[in-house]
Amino acid sequence: MSHLRQNIITRDWVIIASDRGARPYDLPPKPRPEQAINTYEPSCPFCPGNEAMAADELARTPGQGPWRLRVIQNKYPALVPEGDRVRRVDGIYRTMTGVGRHEVIVEHPRHDLMTATLPLADLESLIMTYRGRYLEAHKDPRIESVVIFKNHGERAGTSLLHPHSQLAATPVVPNQIRIRVEEAIRYFDDTGECVFCRTLREELKDRERIVTETDHFVGFVPYAALSPYHFWIFPRRHMSSFDAINDTEVRDLARNLHEVLAKMYQGLNNPDYNYSIRSMPTRSGPTDYFHWYLTIVPRITRTAGFELGSGMFINSTSPEESAAFLRGVSLPEQDSSGA
Amino acid sequence: MSHLRQNIITRDWVIIASDRGARPYDLPPKPRPEQAINTYEPSCPFCPGNEAMAADELARTPGQGPWRLRVIQNKYPALVPEGDRVRRVDGIYRTMTGVGRHEVIVEHPRHDLMTATLPLADLESLIMTYRGRYLEAHKDPRIESVVIFKNHGERAGTSLLHPHSQLAATPVVPNQIRIRVEEAIRYFDDTGECVFCRTLREELKDRERIVTETDHFVGFVPYAALSPYHFWIFPRRHMSSFDAINDTEVRDLARNLHEVLAKMYQGLNNPDYNYSIRSMPTRSGPTDYFHWYLTIVPRITRTAGFELGSGMFINSTSPEESAAFLRGVSLPEQDSSGA
Repeated sequence: MSHLRQNIITRDWVIIASDRGARPYDLPPKPRPEQAINTYEPSCPFCPGNEAMAADELARTPGQGPWRLRVIQNKYPALVPEGDRVRRVDGIYRTMTGVGRHEVIVEHPRHDLMTATLPLADLESLIMTYRGRYLEAHKDPRIESVVIFKNHGERAGTSLLHPHSQLAATPVVPNQIRIRVEEAIRYFDDTGECVFCRTLREELKDRERIVTETDHFVGFVPYAALSPYHFWIFPRRHMSSFDAINDTEVRDLARNLHEVLAKMYQGLNNPDYNYSIRSMPTRSGPTDYFHWYLTIVPRITRTAGFELGSGMFINSTSPEESAAFLRGVSLPEQDSSGA
Repeated sequence: MSHLRQNIITRDWVIIASDRGARPYDLPPKPRPEQAINTYEPSCPFCPGNEAMAADELARTPGQGPWRLRVIQNKYPALVPEGDRVRRVDGIYRTMTGVGRHEVIVEHPRHDLMTATLPLADLESLIMTYRGRYLEAHKDPRIESVVIFKNHGERAGTSLLHPHSQLAATPVVPNQIRIRVEEAIRYFDDTGECVFCRTLREELKDRERIVTETDHFVGFVPYAALSPYHFWIFPRRHMSSFDAINDTEVRDLARNLHEVLAKMYQGLNNPDYNYSIRSMPTRSGPTDYFHWYLTIVPRITRTAGFELGSGMFINSTSPEESAAFLRGVSLPEQDSSGA
């Protein structure tokens, strides 16, 4: 018999129906694309030498080649940095101009690498860049929320192979984030504690769902994981906003993320996935109740009409099984030395 | 420049970025499967004669063949009707036994039909069955919410071709539904009116997003549609719960749904889609503030890391364009006479 679990942070219920399950060995066989991909692709706007095919450059980190990574405008931006933030209310109709930011971070000159196979030093450099771009966006008074995210593979919403991440900064607080902040405040009111800190403490006591532990971060499968291998990485130190991360923590987050992405790559056969960094709305200062984190969702199952109609998810793999499976994936030696 | 819109009912913001857009003519060409599908498939558990391959039958509607439609248990149920509803709270961990219902409604004996190509009389019969199953689930005191939904095509979460719908009844109120009820109460407190009734009134005045109008239902693209051709069908009469629908309204809803599904089928090249019926939690009686409706989401674009990290959507087609496009799809004569 299945059971339901409620996520204390989001209040979302999920149905854990592990009898129905797609187990790792049921995963659709997927050709490992790296064997077929060139290190350079003449038509790729993210490859070195093709910079003119991409939109304006915003920043670059120097490297051994032409550059180590590059930040550019999204060529098809959902939000643009120019213009005023104008809110209009006309009866029940509410609109806002599309000011904000929509940036692309090209993670490496090589076309055939993936975030999961980046050398550790490049992943550190990527997270440093995330912080830098977050800080830039944070300064803009028109911005209320910043989301850093990654789409890997077609099921995750991208067809561009060249490894890249994105940053989107919105002139409103997304409703979902507002709801989570309200829940966090309510938990703090009831207990005097950050619900994320409490969750981390309990998970470290239980240990059943813990997968990756480094000095400053803990990676685990959430108790009420929405889908197989749904994953959270929490900073151990209480911080509301991602840009409060210090240099040591950046390097440590890179180690943690490097390990979990490598485990998913090996164990789940290079799955399509999204990750994103969830952080406090930018117009408020540090708070005692909200705690940023990184969430990873391998796109192994699909959401369907039940999720559409209820917002609830059915997870066919128990979180404990997901965690045990990922813990059991052994990584080759020298994994961090290069691609 | 894009703009943002807020949905007054859900409070969700969406980015309308119609410059980026996939227009209908960009849709991936998809072989019309009906040409390749047999009317009967020996391995299909939903085809007549193969009933023993499916789980237990719960109801059947007689027809010219062996049956007109059949309701069966889901063979891989997320929730089961046997057992007690037991809630356990252990610190931050909250669980509930997986009692409830998970039923499959086989919509027609013919394997090669689709909901979009069902004869109108069969669609009426299907919606009558929805109401009957909803009422059955509603009687069960362990049930708090009932969702009726449909997955069409692989992107929408099904690989079974034989036309079928599902009903899931949960022993909790999904958080998303609770949040919407709270928003509806707040709107009612502020204005003394149902926010759904108000929306319908404004949409009928505007007319820009209206697509299908029948005696008792109105089909339109929501002002803050989450994705291209996202569609709502509202009953004109205020009703909180789907099972308050009367016979005349069932037949009228069938006409409305028949028309919009046919338009999507023709105009969008048989898209994968989900629909679901959103209704009031079952433990409360009728209310002045909540209004059931049917929502359809063609799965043309994919959600990605931005949606994961913010809960906000980017819609590449403006709702007015979506509506105009669907209005412009002309349907063949005799469309309602049969497949």
